[in-house]
Amino acid sequence: MAGSVHEKPILQTLRGRKTESIPFWLMRQAGRYLPEYRAVRASKNGFLDMAFDPSSAAEITMQPVRRFRMDGAIIFSDILVIPWALGQNLEFLEGEGPRLGELNPGKLEMRDLEEKLSPVFEALSRTRDCLAAEGYDRTALIGFAGAPWTVVTYMVEGGGSKDFAKVKTMAYAQPENFARLMDILVESTAMYLIAQVRAGAEILQIFDTWAGALDPHGFQHQVIEPTRKIVERVKAAHPDIPIIGFPRGAAMHYPAYVAQTGVDAVGLDGLVCTKWAAAHLQTKCPVQGNLDPMRLLAGGEGLEKAARKILRDFSGGAHIFNLGHGIHKDTPPAHVERLAEIIREFPA
Amino acid sequence: MAGSVHEKPILQTLRGRKTESIPFWLMRQAGRYLPEYRAVRASKNGFLDMAFDPSSAAEITMQPVRRFRMDGAIIFSDILVIPWALGQNLEFLEGEGPRLGELNPGKLEMRDLEEKLSPVFEALSRTRDCLAAEGYDRTALIGFAGAPWTVVTYMVEGGGSKDFAKVKTMAYAQPENFARLMDILVESTAMYLIAQVRAGAEILQIFDTWAGALDPHGFQHQVIEPTRKIVERVKAAHPDIPIIGFPRGAAMHYPAYVAQTGVDAVGLDGLVCTKWAAAHLQTKCPVQGNLDPMRLLAGGEGLEKAARKILRDFSGGAHIFNLGHGIHKDTPPAHVERLAEIIREFPA
Repeated sequence: MAGSVHEKPILQTLRGRKTESIPFWLMRQAGRYLPEYRAVRASKNGFLDMAFDPSSAAEITMQPVRRFRMDGAIIFSDILVIPWALGQNLEFLEGEGPRLGELNPGKLEMRDLEEKLSPVFEALSRTRDCLAAEGYDRTALIGFAGAPWTVVTYMVEGGGSKDFAKVKTMAYAQPENFARLMDILVESTAMYLIAQVRAGAEILQIFDTWAGALDPHGFQHQVIEPTRKIVERVKAAHPDIPIIGFPRGAAMHYPAYVAQTGVDAVGLDGLVCTKWAAAHLQTKCPVQGNLDPMRLLAGGEGLEKAARKILRDFSGGAHIFNLGHGIHKDTPPAHVERLAEIIREFPA
Repeated sequence: MAGSVHEKPILQTLRGRKTESIPFWLMRQAGRYLPEYRAVRASKNGFLDMAFDPSSAAEITMQPVRRFRMDGAIIFSDILVIPWALGQNLEFLEGEGPRLGELNPGKLEMRDLEEKLSPVFEALSRTRDCLAAEGYDRTALIGFAGAPWTVVTYMVEGGGSKDFAKVKTMAYAQPENFARLMDILVESTAMYLIAQVRAGAEILQIFDTWAGALDPHGFQHQVIEPTRKIVERVKAAHPDIPIIGFPRGAAMHYPAYVAQTGVDAVGLDGLVCTKWAAAHLQTKCPVQGNLDPMRLLAGGEGLEKAARKILRDFSGGAHIFNLGHGIHKDTPPAHVERLAEIIREFPA
């Protein structure tokens, strides 16, 4: 199929070709802002129970596609399944975010990774079948993983962090120990992404949510280098799989990230100046983004103007419309419907 | 004194002149990492009690100068004294950060602002006297305020926030109401800074800690425009006072901030690429920054290398050494001493 004019629009865009309308999907599109998601959640015993039940995960992945016909369906899962599969304890407490157990780097174990993560692969394969069975033949299935830096922040801090003091102290003061931990994450993440492609993922996204928390040296060593290694390994196994890198908050380091990691496209956070990105990034690869999720939450004229400006500023090259960060849980689905219309109508 | 060769080094740097060694100070240098600060704190009834006691505030401001002979002494206070003086309730709970009372925009009252904030002015004047009396005639006194956007995030969210959902929804969905609130902050902040100069501040810094949380339209309207108005007002009253703007996380918007706000110098966060900043910012105005505070916390070879790289990359123009964000409370004072040596020895 690669290169075919009948290819799904988002895949055409990822190969740098113009499509009739701008493809779109939204980070965290399968989630709490949808009543049908909350209904599934109410019937299950917490987040992991849902994410590791292939039938629930596939159903949740399909929900936004049925409403809004996105061009990409991102599998319902979480970036922290990797530390969990490596043997670190993981819980999601209602309204609190993730809590990870104590980290023993020496005890992390990659051996059973694929078996432990088999529910994710099963969910991907079921979703691929659902998309076909329900006639969503323009929608591509997106697999994903957290980038090693972002995942390791949770592993070392034990959860979310405001200042990343523990993980940065480890990275800066014990560079050899930290490098060993990062190597485990590079290897397991590459393995995980390769298996996702085998299970039916047509696009991969690597989320580096906390890329912007580092200093320039840290960005080079903890963001760019591990990502480059993962991309290299995944491409060795699946040369044609498009990979979107999302180094959130990378600021003036975005161009170096694009030039050095080998990703096929780059996701932009909401702060990124669209004209700057059109000049410095879109000339090198397709760009994805970058509406502030709070514009979607707020709705109204501000949403219309902000969305149209992004569409306009990126109209000179390959562009996948998306948010600059995950959708906010209180977002009215009607705002998402309106955004989908604005995107489809463009440039009308 | 302006223009004199006997001027304090940091003031010379702020006027774009070369000095023998690189002047430095550290954000949050007067604070919890110092045992003598913790001793003062133990004797007082919480943060506000200290900040509003001119004798304690002056003493705390002097503490790091006595140890490390910084070129700048930043007055011990907090950016949230402005909402407090406007009538919004404010508490600092131990280990939790600020808590603000309910916001009633219609009830904010600027009338008694200067009187309510008179302890800050008294602290500035006392510190100026201490610096002279104790022979720190190379150290300049720095006054400061939060920028309106950063201050309003706390006022609307009621404290710190992870996603700024409330304040951004207000900014994006009720632009007129939000603009009125920002106008009050512009006016009161300008008034406050002008009074700080009258009380003895020789430099002003405007902290826009959450500048990077906005989208490009928001950055223009909530960061650049209010800051420009404040700078204009302060300069009308005190044309020679140097103003450092610190739009933390401004990414590729730093050049627009420098070009449009009228600040005399710009503070850089820890992510900023020093070579990029030397080319795009330091050619326009003096730069300040930008060591990651976690390098100072971690110490060792990583600290030495990172600090020297910053000194080297900014050696072609006017540079004030500082951190990219406030000093971490667990930082060993010995690391600060070592950093001071590295800066003083440069380029030896």
